[in-house]
Parts: sequence; structure tokens; C-alpha cells
Amino acid sequence: MPHIALPEGMPGIRSAMAFRPETAKPLNELVETLLHDRNSLTAGERELIATYVSYLNDCYYCQTIHGAIAAASLNGDEELVKRVKADFHHADVSAKLKALLVIAAKVQKGGKHVTAEDVAAAREQGATDVEIHDTVLIAAAFCMYNRYVDGLDTLQPRDEAVYRERGKQVAREGYVAVSKTYLPAEAAVG
Amino acid sequence: MPHIALPEGMPGIRSAMAFRPETAKPLNELVETLLHDRNSLTAGERELIATYVSYLNDCYYCQTIHGAIAAASLNGDEELVKRVKADFHHADVSAKLKALLVIAAKVQKGGKHVTAEDVAAAREQGATDVEIHDTVLIAAAFCMYNRYVDGLDTLQPRDEAVYRERGKQVAREGYVAVSKTYLPAEAAVG
Repeated sequence: MPHIALPEGMPGIRSAMAFRPETAKPLNELVETLLHDRNSLTAGERELIATYVSYLNDCYYCQTIHGAIAAASLNGDEELVKRVKADFHHADVSAKLKALLVIAAKVQKGGKHVTAEDVAAAREQGATDVEIHDTVLIAAAFCMYNRYVDGLDTLQPRDEAVYRERGKQVAREGYVAVSKTYLPAEAAVG
Repeated sequence: MPHIALPEGMPGIRSAMAFRPETAKPLNELVETLLHDRNSLTAGERELIATYVSYLNDCYYCQTIHGAIAAASLNGDEELVKRVKADFHHADVSAKLKALLVIAAKVQKGGKHVTAEDVAAAREQGATDVEIHDTVLIAAAFCMYNRYVDGLDTLQPRDEAVYRERGKQVAREGYVAVSKTYLPAEAAVG
């Protein structure tokens, strides 16, 4: 049971956002900019970073919904998402994304773990400064979202089919658009 | 030296925000809502939570600037800020704030560390659901801001007088207003 009186029957971060629309607005805009807006990293790549960090933080809701959005962005390849979580070094992703996942995992432990060598390795694989910046901020942001979702002990349904359907919708329409289905109008406007 | 080509001479998160104004906007709006907007917790109390979490994450820039904003919000009481960081259980703050700091410290470790007993203890001291929510989200958000600032290895000047002056300005005017002094106009609009 959630630690505070969140709207009933609403899962994960959605219940916390509906409870406090004032903070939902910047939280949705941040994730929209980081994961859905146009970027030289694909949506699938960025969702894999978010999924992997959520997995490291052991947040069931976030790793499952972002894993579903990642799969939807990657032609439904759920096996790839599982492989990235279990052992990304041997997953079928680019050497650049592997180098960025190394940085993301360091950020998850704490910002000071990122070394000049980690950054140089990503650059050698073609990562730009904006891509390195966005990787650091995606990883940092999911250290927030994961703690928000678990720190309030939100409802986290175990039925993966629900996440799969929602994942397709978010991959298609984006976070701010989908948030309009459960947030008051003033909070959902992007 | 920062890991990527951030604007020179600009300290901490400001350099990262100037580098990427698209994400600066929701990041500033989030901290404005959490720490500066009207709330049943005072700005000083909320800044103490942010400072304490930044101290636990060992982020020099964030604990120093938010410590300065906290002091400015608490009639200049820098000793109280130091005491909260070193040993908040014996600091001259309310029993409610102490119970909220316990929750914040749990969130810093990971969301699942927060227990029903921690929340019940805060409620016994008069904490409302919104105050508990905001404490969890402030702590979670600073696990992001701290990682962002340290993960890019931003410039973090050691001259406390600089932070003291800036702290007074932010306490007075808020984050979004002050961000207009270093961000492009489209990013700074709250």
C-alpha cells in the first residue's frame, strides 16, 4: 500500500503525478525532452539507457514500462531489452551505446564515478558532447524517477501485458501527450 | 576540467544548463516548484532537506549553494545549516523536520529504504501527505541534480563568499528568475 493517499488504482509514477500536478508538469517535460524529442540518439537507445538505470536501481515499474517503450521503439524486440539489462556488453547494440551505458552505470552509483577515460572511450566510438551530456542526465534523472516511484511505495502491477500496451502508446505519442489521459489539463500541457 | 565542452567560467549546474537549455527549463521549473513556491514547509526547511541530501551525495557545489540559500532563508543562520549536515537529530529544528530528514536520508540510499514506520513517525509529528510527498521528491530530485553536477565534472569554486551572495539572491528572487541571468530567454521562462 502506498505510503500516502495516492489516487487508487493508478500505477507507479502516474499516481504520484496525479497527486501533485504542480510537480508532474516539469517531470513530464523533462522526460519528454530527454527520451522522446528529436535527438541524434534514437528513442530506442535512450529508452535502453533509462531501462538499464532503472534495472540497476531495482525499480520494477520504471524498468518494465521503459523496457516496453524501448521494445516498442525497437520493432518489438523484447529480447534485446532483456539482454541489455542482463549483459549489455554482449548485446546487439552499437559500440557507442555500450560506451554510453558504461557512463550511465557510473552515474547510477554516483556522479564522481564517471572518469575522463569513460568519456574518452565514448568519444572514440563517435559520441558527441550532447550525447554524453544527455546520457549523464538520463541516468541522473532515472535515479530521481526510480526513487520517487519506490520511495512512495506506489502500486506496481505485475501484469506485463499492461506495460506492453502502454509502452506502444508512449513510444508513438510521447509522455506529455499520454499524461493528458490522467492529469488535470493545467499539469499536462507541455 | 569538465568532461564535455561546457561554457567556461560558469560554475556547477549553471554551466550544464547553459550548455543544454532544452533540459534547463524543466530542471529549473522543478526546483522552483519544490523549493521556492508557496508551501506549508518553509523555504528554509525545504532547502535544508536539499542541502542534507546533497551532503550525503558528497556534491560540493549543491550542498554549498543550497546551504547558502537555506541560511539566507533562515535569517543568515549558517551554524544551523552546518549542524543539520553534521547531526540533524541534535540540531535546533522541529521534530517534524527531523522526521522528514530521516525519510530524505532513506530516499538518498534508495526508494525502497523508506518504511511505513518512517512515514508514520513523520505523521505523528504533524507532517501532511503533501509534505511527505514533497520530501520524497526533493530527496529524489537532488539525487539527480547532484549526479548531473558531478557526473559532468563541472567547475565547483571553493570560495564560499560567492555561494553566500548567490544564495541570498536565489532565496529572494527564486530559481527561474535568477536563471534568466545566464540562460537564453526561451529556456529561462518559467
